[in-house]
Order: sequence, then structure tokens, then C-alpha cells
Amino acid sequence: MKIGNLLYTGKAKDVYSSENNDNVIIKFRDDITAGDGEKKDNLQSKGECNSLISSKLFEVLEEKGIKTQYIKLIESGLILSEKLEMIPLEIIVRNIATGSIIKKFPFNKNQEFNPPIIQFDFKNDEYHDPMLNDDIILALKIANKEELKEIRKISLQINDILSKFLKKKGILLVDFKIEFGKNLNGDIRLGDEISPDTCRFWDIKTLKTLDKDLFRKGEGDVMDVYKKVCKLIVSEEDLKKNGELIWH
Amino acid sequence: MKIGNLLYTGKAKDVYSSENNDNVIIKFRDDITAGDGEKKDNLQSKGECNSLISSKLFEVLEEKGIKTQYIKLIESGLILSEKLEMIPLEIIVRNIATGSIIKKFPFNKNQEFNPPIIQFDFKNDEYHDPMLNDDIILALKIANKEELKEIRKISLQINDILSKFLKKKGILLVDFKIEFGKNLNGDIRLGDEISPDTCRFWDIKTLKTLDKDLFRKGEGDVMDVYKKVCKLIVSEEDLKKNGELIWH
Repeated sequence: MKIGNLLYTGKAKDVYSSENNDNVIIKFRDDITAGDGEKKDNLQSKGECNSLISSKLFEVLEEKGIKTQYIKLIESGLILSEKLEMIPLEIIVRNIATGSIIKKFPFNKNQEFNPPIIQFDFKNDEYHDPMLNDDIILALKIANKEELKEIRKISLQINDILSKFLKKKGILLVDFKIEFGKNLNGDIRLGDEISPDTCRFWDIKTLKTLDKDLFRKGEGDVMDVYKKVCKLIVSEEDLKKNGELIWH
Repeated sequence: MKIGNLLYTGKAKDVYSSENNDNVIIKFRDDITAGDGEKKDNLQSKGECNSLISSKLFEVLEEKGIKTQYIKLIESGLILSEKLEMIPLEIIVRNIATGSIIKKFPFNKNQEFNPPIIQFDFKNDEYHDPMLNDDIILALKIANKEELKEIRKISLQINDILSKFLKKKGILLVDFKIEFGKNLNGDIRLGDEISPDTCRFWDIKTLKTLDKDLFRKGEGDVMDVYKKVCKLIVSEEDLKKNGELIWH
């Protein structure tokens, strides 16, 4: 598949045009950042690893009826996706209290949220991704009431589906960040990625961290853990087909 | 009326018990603070001035059917109120974009919000009054869904009533902060104060500041302006009855 022009470059991914104008090719890079972009590194094979994990999780969601931009994994590191106009929201779904929410509010560390908490952050580097409320989202014209309601509903469905899937793999879905966009018909679709860069995954037995928190805190070998997560989530067949660059 | 024991002391008011156990006496002090308590001063007559303004605005709201803790002005500086268990929320209603909201989000300065924006901040000094969303309010058990809905509805009614009343007095209600509590029956009542300490008031013709922003920015004689607002809002009769300490 021919990769077209660079359309957009983010902190860890690039988006290229594809031969079909309705689609884009998303390249997962090895860059990793944390702390509002203050901490940076480049971890060999991270892009390929995350592309495999994200592909698998988007496939799981599609199978359960969630509409996403995902079309197929072209090869490890490259995903063919429907072109979206992204909505500048980071939707954070939390099942367990950890990270920024226990710094900002008096929750007990590791307390369970039932129902889960949904938080909308404004994806805006200049304003440092502030937390929004519904009134502010409407006033900024980021989304309308119906779109917000739909995004909230789909986000909870995604949480249910992924929590159950990951549990079977020995992973606890603590919290995650997702992004939505609108396709050329104006329909809302899940976009972006779902990976250890964008989720908190804990080992369901030991509660050990299996995600970017290792990088944030400078603890242990990040790629060892990402590869472990990849092996837990992605089928052996898919790993053999696409993972050879990672596992050599 | 006999003032009882000090029950609670805030940044600018003290709450005392009264002879009737269902009621409290709120003393408006001359202290003024800004910037999360970092800037402090004591302005002679401010407490008396704000008690007169707040009494009048609570009377206006009561006349229009809003249920509040206000019973009566005992004398300038002292208000008899129903005892409430306060809900630790600062409800901020915004008609025009100014102050913290234009620092945190890309709104145009002085842009009109129609409908108004409601923001819930957590009244908690240790956590520096962070902005909340509904899910976080529910998870912290600050209020339940029905209470939140009621608080939102009453807050918008208060905005309508006060905006109209103040407009007739030559004052534009830019934004304001209110607090609610529950009385001994568990019913939600408007509490606290409504004054130039807790509202943004602009001169409707010149758009000049008539509120605590003068103190925040260190501009002009704050008490001159507070007294001007008092004269605009409070009837001459009530001023003569209660204002002698302020105006000598």
C-alpha cells in the first residue's frame, strides 16, 4: 500500500494520506512523551508494538458493534483508517482512582469507581489540556448536546467491552483515554489509538503497572512490559505475521 | 437579639448560634481576600455594606419564590438566617467571559454566554477549589443527581431574577458565585451571600468594574465603589435605617 503525504504529526503518531481519499494511514512512532510533553524519549519498537495492541483492541470493539475508524493493520506500525475530523476532546474513563484524579480531588488511592467516572479534557496544547464541563464544551462549540450524549454512551460501552476482554488476558483496565472524530458523512467514530500509552493496565493478580506510568515514573524497562502486554493481547498468529521486527 | 457561640469562621464571615436552634446569625466581617487567600486586607465598613447588599438581593429572590436561608437583617453587618448544612460547592454562573475562564479556555474576552455557563468548583482549601464535573461530584458524594439538577435549575432562575433586578439599577450581572445548603428538613436552600465580594458587577453604561476585581487588581478605592453599589441596590429607607455606620 502506497503511503501518501504527511497530513498531521502528533506526539507519538503521524497521519498520512492514502490512495483512497476517504482513508488515512496512521504511523505509530517510537516517540514517547509524558508530563504535558516535558519528558521525552524514543523507545525502539514501541510504535510497532502499540500498533499491534491497538489493532487488536479496535478489532475487539468492532466485533462488539462499536463503530471506529479502524480498517486494518497494513503491517506492524501502520494502520489503515477511515479519515476523521477529530473532535478536540480527550475522553478519560476511570474505573479505579489513581494518577491525576487523586492529586486533584480527595479520592482514596485505588478506590473503585462504580459507576465509572468520565472526564472530558480539552485537547489543546496552548491551554495545557484543561478539564471541561458540559456547559463549557457547548460554549466552545466543541460538540453539541446530542454528540456529547452519544460520546458518553459509547465510551461506557467501550469500557465494558475492553474491561471484559482484558480481564480474560489477565489485565485490569484501570483507566483509559480515547478520542472521537467525525467521518466524511458527519458520523461519530472512535479514532486514535488504545495502547499502553493511552491506558492504565495493571496485572490483575499483582496489580503491577503494565503501561506508560513506568515511563512517567522512570521505573523498570518500559519496552519489556509493552512487549509483554502485546503478547498477552495479540494472538500468536498475528504476532508471527506482524511482530517479527519487534521480537528479534 | 442575642448572639450565641461562634460556630464557623470563614474568610469574610462568621456564623454564630442564635437563641432559636433552627437559626444562625451571620456576621459580615471587613476582611477581604483574593487569589486563593494570598492577598488579604481589611476594609472599614465592608462587612456592613455587603450585609445590606446581600439582604436586599436575598429579599428580591425570596419575593420571586427562590427559597433561601435568609430571614432578616438584624442590623447592618448581622443577618439572621436559617441554619444550613452547607454543600461544599461553589456554583459559578457566567453571563460574560472574563476572569479565570478566559485564562483557562479560549473564549474571547467579554464574549456573551447564551445560555449562561454553570461551573461547579469544589469548596476545599486543601485542594484549592478545583473545578468539578458531574461524575466527580457524584463519586465524591457531594450531591446526588436530583440535587445537582435542582441546584442547576435554581441557579439559572437566580441568574434571571438578579440580572433583571440589577439591570434596572444600572448594573450588569457579569457572573456570580453562590452556595447552597440543606436545612434541618433536608431541603435545599440558597445560602451564603450575594455581594460585590461574590459577583462581578459592571456599570451597565461604562462597563466599569463595581466589585472585588478592583481589590484583586489593586485598582482604585474599593470601598468607594462598594458603597456606590450599596446606594444603587438598597432603598434609601433601608439605608437610613441601617447604613448610618457606613455613611458617616
